[in-house]
Amino acid sequence: MTDLGVHSTAREMVRAIASREITCSELMDLHLERIAERNPQLNAIVSLDEERARDGASEADRTPYDERGPLHGLPWAFKDTHDVAGWLTTYGSPLLRDNVPDRDELVVERIRKAGAVPIGKTNVPEFAAGSHTFNTVFGTTLNPVDPTRSAGGSSGGAACALAAGMVPLADGSDMGGSLRNPASFCGVVGLRPSRGRVPAWPSANQWEALGISGPLARNVGDLALLLSVIAGPDPRVPLALGDPGSAFAPPIAGSLKGLRVAVSPDLGGLIEVDAEVAAAVEAAGRTMAAAGSHVEADQPDLTLAEDTFRTLRAWVFQAGFKDLLADHPDEFKPSLADNIRAGEGLTGADVARAYEQLTAVGETARLFFERYDVLLLPTSQVPPFPADQEYPADINGRPMTTYLDWMRSAYLITVTGCPAISMPGATTRDGLPIGVQLVTAHGTDRRLLEVAAAYESLDFETRRGARR
Amino acid sequence: MTDLGVHSTAREMVRAIASREITCSELMDLHLERIAERNPQLNAIVSLDEERARDGASEADRTPYDERGPLHGLPWAFKDTHDVAGWLTTYGSPLLRDNVPDRDELVVERIRKAGAVPIGKTNVPEFAAGSHTFNTVFGTTLNPVDPTRSAGGSSGGAACALAAGMVPLADGSDMGGSLRNPASFCGVVGLRPSRGRVPAWPSANQWEALGISGPLARNVGDLALLLSVIAGPDPRVPLALGDPGSAFAPPIAGSLKGLRVAVSPDLGGLIEVDAEVAAAVEAAGRTMAAAGSHVEADQPDLTLAEDTFRTLRAWVFQAGFKDLLADHPDEFKPSLADNIRAGEGLTGADVARAYEQLTAVGETARLFFERYDVLLLPTSQVPPFPADQEYPADINGRPMTTYLDWMRSAYLITVTGCPAISMPGATTRDGLPIGVQLVTAHGTDRRLLEVAAAYESLDFETRRGARR
Repeated sequence: MTDLGVHSTAREMVRAIASREITCSELMDLHLERIAERNPQLNAIVSLDEERARDGASEADRTPYDERGPLHGLPWAFKDTHDVAGWLTTYGSPLLRDNVPDRDELVVERIRKAGAVPIGKTNVPEFAAGSHTFNTVFGTTLNPVDPTRSAGGSSGGAACALAAGMVPLADGSDMGGSLRNPASFCGVVGLRPSRGRVPAWPSANQWEALGISGPLARNVGDLALLLSVIAGPDPRVPLALGDPGSAFAPPIAGSLKGLRVAVSPDLGGLIEVDAEVAAAVEAAGRTMAAAGSHVEADQPDLTLAEDTFRTLRAWVFQAGFKDLLADHPDEFKPSLADNIRAGEGLTGADVARAYEQLTAVGETARLFFERYDVLLLPTSQVPPFPADQEYPADINGRPMTTYLDWMRSAYLITVTGCPAISMPGATTRDGLPIGVQLVTAHGTDRRLLEVAAAYESLDFETRRGARR
Repeated sequence: MTDLGVHSTAREMVRAIASREITCSELMDLHLERIAERNPQLNAIVSLDEERARDGASEADRTPYDERGPLHGLPWAFKDTHDVAGWLTTYGSPLLRDNVPDRDELVVERIRKAGAVPIGKTNVPEFAAGSHTFNTVFGTTLNPVDPTRSAGGSSGGAACALAAGMVPLADGSDMGGSLRNPASFCGVVGLRPSRGRVPAWPSANQWEALGISGPLARNVGDLALLLSVIAGPDPRVPLALGDPGSAFAPPIAGSLKGLRVAVSPDLGGLIEVDAEVAAAVEAAGRTMAAAGSHVEADQPDLTLAEDTFRTLRAWVFQAGFKDLLADHPDEFKPSLADNIRAGEGLTGADVARAYEQLTAVGETARLFFERYDVLLLPTSQVPPFPADQEYPADINGRPMTTYLDWMRSAYLITVTGCPAISMPGATTRDGLPIGVQLVTAHGTDRRLLEVAAAYESLDFETRRGARR
């Protein structure tokens, strides 16, 4: 028989299916059992359809071997903001509680074509807004390590499901940290790819420069496998980067020796950071130095990124939601409604300023990465906060007045366009996961994966221990 | 000795230098003589510096053969809106009459690195706005075929200089037709490349989706040579298409046989077109059909492109010039000042609508080019107009009320993001050049060059004759 379990790597699962060590149906059953155990409490997977899942797995078992893709037979829960033909796709909004798309969006199309078997969706905040996963359609997703805590968001259902062994891999998306914060909170790996790396289609505005889909996994090798499926150009998306997805396929190996690493616990005072998080980042820096990296305290000047992100986010939100908000003012959470209304007051000149600053911040990052290979900083400014709060009320006594205030460590990096990965870095005294964020130059996603793999290969106790 | 003259192809000149048939200095002298003959009347080249030109040619003669690029020794006049380190770069504005940049912009850097020898600049309209080349710094550029007529613009100096044999090749740029209209008016070839094909750096706003640099030449093979030098990704420009410049290098050969060609003299009634221009497009369609193409009357629906172009252009202009206009209201031509002021009234929602329409028009074009290989339409809606007018007052009696109204055949295509080339198509009864515009799917620049080369290989009398 097989040693395979729900915490095996996705690559092991794929290999086990290919070598007939396990059938797709058996693998599905393992996961459905796990979901039955864990999901009633954690609420990570929504719109679960066990019957269709089992039928899909049976069908996958009948697929000829030469027609199988790199994710063949893996049970899959798509993010509930990703359109999946024939599956309920609510975006976490009561306005779309009955929405069943009639076509897959591109990232879903690629994952399905690679052989994944749909089982349901992963829970999200309303329209993916905010980095804590709760909504009035399905309720709140809880942290798998401590269910009194938030799983983060907006890919919170995805990160939780992964960490709890309910799915082997997960797709997500990230505008202000939505692939990174939940990875940090749940103790998994989340990559925000380089701008342009994972094309989106359909898209209302192809020039929207902040949002991107990307992979979540329990380890870097699995993450690379998923990135290799979802990355690469598509004729429908004129602005995508040209490298084929295969450029990111595992195996991924790298070394920390000789790397020029800039470590920045607070981006030069731009962000307020919880003491345990700051300590985790410092510890990761020491760990990398011990492994041979040249580690210095430094950071790019991301001052302009604050207004840039806030302006473009509000602009995108008003474009997407202002008509819906006008028609249904009571069907939006207040924090999201405020964000949409902030966008309604923007002038064309405000938007031009934001795009000019976006260009300037990209240039700042480019020049910074001529001097450093890697920037190391916090993923989230705080450890997982109580799940009954919408967002942390303060950090170190400094009040957080909007649902975005505490997400700067993630969203200032968004503005650079650079790839950024959240890796498990340490745990708090209470045992909660803390992620650290590694960033490399735009377009160097493979290089970032290599660095992350080298970091991951260090013993986790070493990473934790260095904090003490 | 050599048969080489100023109307030889750029490729012949490069080969002749490489084979020592002629020196760079001799080639320079040929061109300076030609400029002395023709430029005093035509005013295509400005800021001419014969001494530096001769010194540059001498230096080029001393360059070791293994350090020579593909444009080695070619006399070069850069468009006066392209920053050239150490050379007067006025943008045609009295506000910049003494501006000498201290660095090359990317397209200039690439051309210089390829071995071109600077001699001066080519004249432009004020800040390249409008498709007729006149300004208060240098005056008006005249049409080389009939000096009472406009040479078009904004790359008017470039197209005129090429047609008159004053330069072998020329760089230009195109937002609303600035590479295509002057090619049409002067009887040369001008390519607006696919969006993202020729990266720009530095750039105030990398998300500006309308403007792009591109090549002008007297024939398709020469055009391909220049495109191969200026195209391709650069680490400073995150959104460029990935193909290397070498993908576009000559030789270029193609066939018209079996091509699915949609011919549209007036884009389905969207544009008013002079009768001789419409006849030239119809004739080109018949010529292509005679060469084996499947020609049908059809066009994509570009209705949305009108508001999209007007909005984004005004938005870009206000961002670039509103402060300068406020400080120097009398130093702008009224048509440009109006265009800038139109942008000042835009809301963020207007800009979002424009970007959404830009996305939709790109999708319309993509689906259209699943059914057709090529769209054939007029380059300019009119033949070259009198040089003492700013723009045509009317077309077929329909009044043109702004400097943009008569440029729709070019700027509606801009919005698609597709590559578009203007080829000499016919001449008017008065002997004035008329260009026809060929368009293919986004990203298929090489394919477009192949189609253009096949079209070019037809006898020009055939193309003219088919009109009668």
